[in-house]
Amino acid sequence: MTRNRLQAVRRALAAHHVDAFLVSENSHIRYLTGFTGSNAVCFVTPRRAVLITDGRYRSQAPAEVDGATVVIARQSLFAELSERHLVRPGMRVGVEEEHLSAASLRTLRRLLPRCSFPAMSPLIERMSAVKDASEIRRIKRAVEITDAVFAKVLIAIEPGLRELDLAAEISYWHRKYGADSEAFDPIVASGPRAALPHARATTKKIRVGEVVVLDFGCRYQGYNSDMTRVVALGRPSAEMQKIHGIVREAQQRAIDAIRPGMEARALDAVARTHIEKAGYGKFFVHSLGHGLGIHIHDSLRISSLSSELLHEHAVVTIEPGIYLPGKGGVRIEDDVLITRGGCSVLTRSPRDLIVL
Amino acid sequence: MTRNRLQAVRRALAAHHVDAFLVSENSHIRYLTGFTGSNAVCFVTPRRAVLITDGRYRSQAPAEVDGATVVIARQSLFAELSERHLVRPGMRVGVEEEHLSAASLRTLRRLLPRCSFPAMSPLIERMSAVKDASEIRRIKRAVEITDAVFAKVLIAIEPGLRELDLAAEISYWHRKYGADSEAFDPIVASGPRAALPHARATTKKIRVGEVVVLDFGCRYQGYNSDMTRVVALGRPSAEMQKIHGIVREAQQRAIDAIRPGMEARALDAVARTHIEKAGYGKFFVHSLGHGLGIHIHDSLRISSLSSELLHEHAVVTIEPGIYLPGKGGVRIEDDVLITRGGCSVLTRSPRDLIVL
Repeated sequence: MTRNRLQAVRRALAAHHVDAFLVSENSHIRYLTGFTGSNAVCFVTPRRAVLITDGRYRSQAPAEVDGATVVIARQSLFAELSERHLVRPGMRVGVEEEHLSAASLRTLRRLLPRCSFPAMSPLIERMSAVKDASEIRRIKRAVEITDAVFAKVLIAIEPGLRELDLAAEISYWHRKYGADSEAFDPIVASGPRAALPHARATTKKIRVGEVVVLDFGCRYQGYNSDMTRVVALGRPSAEMQKIHGIVREAQQRAIDAIRPGMEARALDAVARTHIEKAGYGKFFVHSLGHGLGIHIHDSLRISSLSSELLHEHAVVTIEPGIYLPGKGGVRIEDDVLITRGGCSVLTRSPRDLIVL
Repeated sequence: MTRNRLQAVRRALAAHHVDAFLVSENSHIRYLTGFTGSNAVCFVTPRRAVLITDGRYRSQAPAEVDGATVVIARQSLFAELSERHLVRPGMRVGVEEEHLSAASLRTLRRLLPRCSFPAMSPLIERMSAVKDASEIRRIKRAVEITDAVFAKVLIAIEPGLRELDLAAEISYWHRKYGADSEAFDPIVASGPRAALPHARATTKKIRVGEVVVLDFGCRYQGYNSDMTRVVALGRPSAEMQKIHGIVREAQQRAIDAIRPGMEARALDAVARTHIEKAGYGKFFVHSLGHGLGIHIHDSLRISSLSSELLHEHAVVTIEPGIYLPGKGGVRIEDDVLITRGGCSVLTRSPRDLIVL
């Protein structure tokens, strides 16, 4: 699998007018070679691929890596490029400009003054945006795990628990069900805090009459899930019920509208228009969704500004929301696989406002 | 507190020959302003400080930020710098070269062609390496939580559990005890996998006769803890007992040797020499430790190459290890506050090889 991907990178070198590609983003390195460590670069030329990492991975790297030669760096990873003569004078070495610090680029220029380091277009992002069968299987498993975790959270939730207690349950069950890790720190936002779209869990206790926004996901074999649900403890206010209905309908309309070839901003508009017509447009303060895969935010952005085209075999989140400062908020988020005829919703948890 | 830090940044501007400083690293932004969100930049001039973030943080940012004006970006964060005329033509704007992508630097140059963006020395890293009383209190609490979590793990551990099950316990108890999040994905490496210094938890089951390396930590109010302990299920092999004794002695010698003003590599040498003399030098494949604070890897590196000087009010890890490929490994890691006369070990968990 990874060998095919390295081959695809090699084929892209000429089109990008470079002699080699220096991959520096960890999940891209995993995508291309299988290496799961946290400190490496991968150097790909038409004839070879070399993974450079440090001594902590001396045993792990050869066991994981397929299709690339493993080099254990004696000093810095970049210094190996010149010391081992992997980079020859005059070479054009494409770099991942979005995933390389300005300091690292300066170091490369200093170590290899006779080479150039043009920014590549987001090559791995584009390759990995089209999921193959094995990737879709992993994403589906990550989503299944997150669905199962939500069922456990529904059993655990009760008045008097702190937001952190629910985050603890989420963290626990994700791992018990076999996730590599969480995709991000769970968002558990109750009562007025539900108006904060990205509130982390705190020591605040959950009370009867409050709604709780839960946004969480996991990573399974390198692939992410991401889900948001809203739970009410006791009967929620009429306004919360109303905005939940609006958000749910906005999400359903977006899901129904998804087609490959569609502009991302047109899809955003489907949900946004519904929320605007209901009078809550200015309270939908973020974009409709994002690509999902080896990154929790994969390349496809579904925002009002995005002219990207939806395409088959992409996985995206669809997550409209309404946030009323001081009162509370609602977001509903599903993971969706784009198919030839439309899409397949991967998330199975009920989307209704669950009243406990 | 954060106002004093912003003042210190202001005082540093002239020394760095810049008109302003653009802070782009999230934990540095939190350090300077209190903002805990994940998408922001902070722009500091001699007369003002502006935090620019996105619409998701419209309510959260003003509630958290002290000493800076909050701006909600309409498009990209950087575009606000020019559109709001925060940056004037000809300005020299220092950037965090280590924490700014090459792409972002190019964007800044395109948006603000008449300005320059010199790399600042690691200013916030250096400021935050000297901990004040409130920071030390938070680190101590993070370490206490991790100690308490280890006690829970010792109760939970038993043959037949998967490494992931222990990771689940660690994740759960960290949050139950009030941590914001984990500092990193827990390392749970059993049997031969203990020879991999950075092995993540897997579905491998833990068996009688194996040693298990547990490396974990949490973040509490933005400050990290980091600890490693070794547990044996049943009587460990004579070789594992032997290397545990060597590592423990190497760590103790390093702790006893710590003095402010000492070169970091001299401290590394204290532990490394002991391990080398015992015949295991080539199996100690990483550096002795690292600074700890708002980053899990703070600026001070305690390696054989580091000429940095240890200083009072730094917190560092001391974590020698020996890794025998195919057999197993040992690492013992404590968090240590450097004091005027030496150091104070913050981690309280027993350092012995715990046999269950």
